[in-house]
Amino acid sequence: VASQHSVNMADVARAAGVSIGTVSRALRDAPGVSEPNRLRIKSLAEELSYVVSPEASRLSRGSTGRVLVVAPTLNRWFYSTMLAGIERVLREAALDVLIYHVEGAADRHAFFAKLPARRKVDAVVVIAFPVTDDDVRRLELMGVAVVGAGGRLGGHPNVGIDDEAAAAKAVAHLTALGHRRIAMIRTQDPEGYVWPADTSRARGYRRALAEAGISADDAWVVTVPWGVAGGARAMEELLQWSEPPTAVFAHSDEVAIGALQTLRRADIPVPEHMSIVGVDNHPLAEPVDLTTVHQPVEEQGQVAGRLVLSLLHGGVPASPHVMLPTSLIVRGSTAPPDSLSRSLSSGISGVPVTT
Amino acid sequence: VASQHSVNMADVARAAGVSIGTVSRALRDAPGVSEPNRLRIKSLAEELSYVVSPEASRLSRGSTGRVLVVAPTLNRWFYSTMLAGIERVLREAALDVLIYHVEGAADRHAFFAKLPARRKVDAVVVIAFPVTDDDVRRLELMGVAVVGAGGRLGGHPNVGIDDEAAAAKAVAHLTALGHRRIAMIRTQDPEGYVWPADTSRARGYRRALAEAGISADDAWVVTVPWGVAGGARAMEELLQWSEPPTAVFAHSDEVAIGALQTLRRADIPVPEHMSIVGVDNHPLAEPVDLTTVHQPVEEQGQVAGRLVLSLLHGGVPASPHVMLPTSLIVRGSTAPPDSLSRSLSSGISGVPVTT
Repeated sequence: VASQHSVNMADVARAAGVSIGTVSRALRDAPGVSEPNRLRIKSLAEELSYVVSPEASRLSRGSTGRVLVVAPTLNRWFYSTMLAGIERVLREAALDVLIYHVEGAADRHAFFAKLPARRKVDAVVVIAFPVTDDDVRRLELMGVAVVGAGGRLGGHPNVGIDDEAAAAKAVAHLTALGHRRIAMIRTQDPEGYVWPADTSRARGYRRALAEAGISADDAWVVTVPWGVAGGARAMEELLQWSEPPTAVFAHSDEVAIGALQTLRRADIPVPEHMSIVGVDNHPLAEPVDLTTVHQPVEEQGQVAGRLVLSLLHGGVPASPHVMLPTSLIVRGSTAPPDSLSRSLSSGISGVPVTT
Repeated sequence: VASQHSVNMADVARAAGVSIGTVSRALRDAPGVSEPNRLRIKSLAEELSYVVSPEASRLSRGSTGRVLVVAPTLNRWFYSTMLAGIERVLREAALDVLIYHVEGAADRHAFFAKLPARRKVDAVVVIAFPVTDDDVRRLELMGVAVVGAGGRLGGHPNVGIDDEAAAAKAVAHLTALGHRRIAMIRTQDPEGYVWPADTSRARGYRRALAEAGISADDAWVVTVPWGVAGGARAMEELLQWSEPPTAVFAHSDEVAIGALQTLRRADIPVPEHMSIVGVDNHPLAEPVDLTTVHQPVEEQGQVAGRLVLSLLHGGVPASPHVMLPTSLIVRGSTAPPDSLSRSLSSGISGVPVTT
């Protein structure tokens, strides 16, 4: 048993500034260590995941047979679809999948501070949420394989899409149709944090405008909480402007669908008087006829699962940073700007328009 | 250690037709047991979950600290929302959540035949899918707490809604508006299995028609694979009929949204020429203005989580069979039948109608 733990005991000894022998005596409650030192060493050993328990000894052999998936939400399409892809690959490899749901910044912080899955898993997959460099370093203390799904995770193997390019595709489609006044609906979480995908998509929006010779105006950006209700509210705001946009790029399809709801209620026909484009190709984008940029989400999950398998089999994956392609899907929510939408811009904004 | 295992050793002894002492010697590789007997006893011990391993000894103390959630899909709104509710309650109780995804009948059969989570969990929650009496008996072999979420699971504690009543509410809304030719879009899985919720909703549909004095006609029912595409196809079929319905009750909102897609493409205005009602109150039902019957899904998940906690704390839950209420939400997809829809019924079905 001792040999299984020697590496970790050395870590504890180094952290405590004592000899390995002292660590060993402290952990065995053997004589020769003062009570304060014993408590300090035990606390450090706990902190460094050195615990004499069946779970810990299994971890030191590197096979609990379990992988933890950490997600900020389980019931949004993007996250549940990613999870489905990850689970499919890991289940086929006879690994068990544990899930941990971090709701909000306090939960996220607590997760990295306490690492509740320490000693319980062989690998951790983090699905797209804001993670600081400190968080990544804490995660590394677990001493297990770490993979990012749907975004970067420090320098660890990861899979995602090029969010900036995806957004640029959506906006270039609008500029190619002749739109010049193109708003973006950006998103933040209920606590006001902007998530990495949103930052990248805003960059793509500005890039596509610049490439079309349109000077991007920050006033053209509305930021709302992510979701259908946020999208609806953003569109209400856009319709109040003295010069409303003729087209809107929404952070994602669910936000775009909220924007469509507002337009329907205001009797503003889409795409005749307003074009809308999203990102995702959510399963409900087709039935509502939404133009969007498709991203392969289940496939990203499967790649994340395969990255885990590579790491567990002791190798560095051949391609540790995988970026899957996206593609524009043109449906009925986008068209060239028309004259009526231009007359709308002359001040009668927010007034229902009938055909 | 021996005392922890005595009950199971007796089980093995009984199954093997040998004494407990022989079982003990066989498992310890002690002398006095023939090699064939040793192998047979070890194999039986494995079969009966008696394994000298840290995992097994934790199980015999009844606390792996883990709960397994088995679901037929992870990325449909109903299942991922149920999972989110279950996970929330179990995480707050510091239990770990393992997920297992059974895709299709072969997977479901294999899950119950092999019980891959044996020795790994304290409880199993099964989220709504077809489970036979034999499956339930197999599950009971695990000797852990068992809970059904979103449906019945033998006589085990469970939570769900009254699917028949939910459907009857939707259809009674249509009959109250004056509709008489009301079709139902039923669903099956890709292998042709009809799921319990569908059977109950079809019963509610027939009951509401009968209560309105309408003789339910089986020909008014179209059955398609569950989902948006299925709903779209069902509506195409309904529009081909020489006497199309004036209103449609869809098994669930995603199916209804598929039906709306077909109506939009055929330029048939909703609700003027066709009313549609679903079940769920999916987050995208409001933006597409779909009348539906709300069911509380996250809340069902939370109740399922609390049922697990009751069982793990040694008690029979005070209310082991929980049925949460549903409510009709009237939006813009339903209205009284109009004259144009009646003229449609005279044979010019499927032809786009312009306002």
